[in-house]
Amino acid sequence: MTYCVGLCVDEGLVMLSDTRTNAGLDNISSFSKMFVAEVPGERALVMMTAGNLAVTQTVWNLLQQGVWLGGAQHQLDTVPDMFHAAQLVGAAVRQVKQMDGAALLAQGISFECSILLGGQILDGPPRLFLVYAAGNFIEATEDTPFLQIGEHKYGKPILDRVLNMKTSLSEGVALTLISMDSTVRSNLSVGLPLDLAVIRRDALRISFRKRITEEDPYYRAIREGWAGALRDAYLSLPRPDFPVG
Amino acid sequence: MTYCVGLCVDEGLVMLSDTRTNAGLDNISSFSKMFVAEVPGERALVMMTAGNLAVTQTVWNLLQQGVWLGGAQHQLDTVPDMFHAAQLVGAAVRQVKQMDGAALLAQGISFECSILLGGQILDGPPRLFLVYAAGNFIEATEDTPFLQIGEHKYGKPILDRVLNMKTSLSEGVALTLISMDSTVRSNLSVGLPLDLAVIRRDALRISFRKRITEEDPYYRAIREGWAGALRDAYLSLPRPDFPVG
Repeated sequence: MTYCVGLCVDEGLVMLSDTRTNAGLDNISSFSKMFVAEVPGERALVMMTAGNLAVTQTVWNLLQQGVWLGGAQHQLDTVPDMFHAAQLVGAAVRQVKQMDGAALLAQGISFECSILLGGQILDGPPRLFLVYAAGNFIEATEDTPFLQIGEHKYGKPILDRVLNMKTSLSEGVALTLISMDSTVRSNLSVGLPLDLAVIRRDALRISFRKRITEEDPYYRAIREGWAGALRDAYLSLPRPDFPVG
Repeated sequence: MTYCVGLCVDEGLVMLSDTRTNAGLDNISSFSKMFVAEVPGERALVMMTAGNLAVTQTVWNLLQQGVWLGGAQHQLDTVPDMFHAAQLVGAAVRQVKQMDGAALLAQGISFECSILLGGQILDGPPRLFLVYAAGNFIEATEDTPFLQIGEHKYGKPILDRVLNMKTSLSEGVALTLISMDSTVRSNLSVGLPLDLAVIRRDALRISFRKRITEEDPYYRAIREGWAGALRDAYLSLPRPDFPVG
């Protein structure tokens, strides 16, 4: 399993992924699910993946090599804007499906992948997309300025309640780490270390990147603080005003 | 979808279920998923169901009518202890599968049901079981004194972090309502009104029962209070101690 979350707020983008992969509970490994394409001063894109690792790694390899889109071969380094970048990732997904889909199906393995793509190119705005296994995609909007892939449920309530377009990048980092912590706590197949990337609006480069391990002091503060804060939140609520028997 | 949660703590049992059923998003109804068997002074049992409504209602009808277990026909009113009660519910599930499983399969409908059964009989302790579609079951223990069926993920983190055997019934009611509120907030197919039942240890009757609507003042206090408390919890945590770019 996997959990990746991306935020697209006024100040820019926050992208966070776990690194755990598993082929059954008895075969657990650590693979980065975060990929970066950057031309400083021109563009910065971060891609995060969930699903079959052979599929998603091949998608990334194809993107490195170049994928046909609109009569020309492109990479994330060369597409003119973020909409084309999302289309390019979708085209790469479809190409992998064409290459490997039948063989996977013959093994009884369904073609599973979902991809978050966030970034900014030149004078376009920062944008965040979720590309499906069919190669089509949706985009985060002001109403819901975040997207998730993988094990999304445990970490969704806090985002639903707190995040909005005015959330700062620094607050966004805290929020995504809280969301991740709730997921790691409840699902063994999501695990540390984490990959974090921040793209500040108009920086046109990866503004900040960090691998977060169990020993990271800030993550520990979030983890321990959130457990305590949740208990305090619960204690602050009224008890039933009726006798429960 | 459905969300039901049961707690089994030192003081007794708290059982909470939603009432929403849906056959597609365009066909949403309200059905109670909570069923009660009570012989005051002798036993009190509460059953909550998730899955195919035709299956779970038939399970309850069979239990009313009597199900064969160990060479005799029993109802929840007559089984000697909670272990037998869980076996009886499992036997009823298997009987429905035998009656309807093939016809469901022929329609491409899988046989889905899961059931929470909590209660106390005579001098046995309060016990809480989760009965699967195969008719087998697990029991809540001191390590994890709660069980959930249906859409369980959104409402699990708060239970993981706060609940223990010393949690009072009154606190348990607050906790289950918080857990339910997180679920209702994030999944449209879980909805009010709610059915709440409390069985205090050694009361040998349903100690408290309440149908909770949107207008219920305590539920409103929980709902509004929890949204605010979560935001406060988030605000109480430190921001990153590093510049995020």
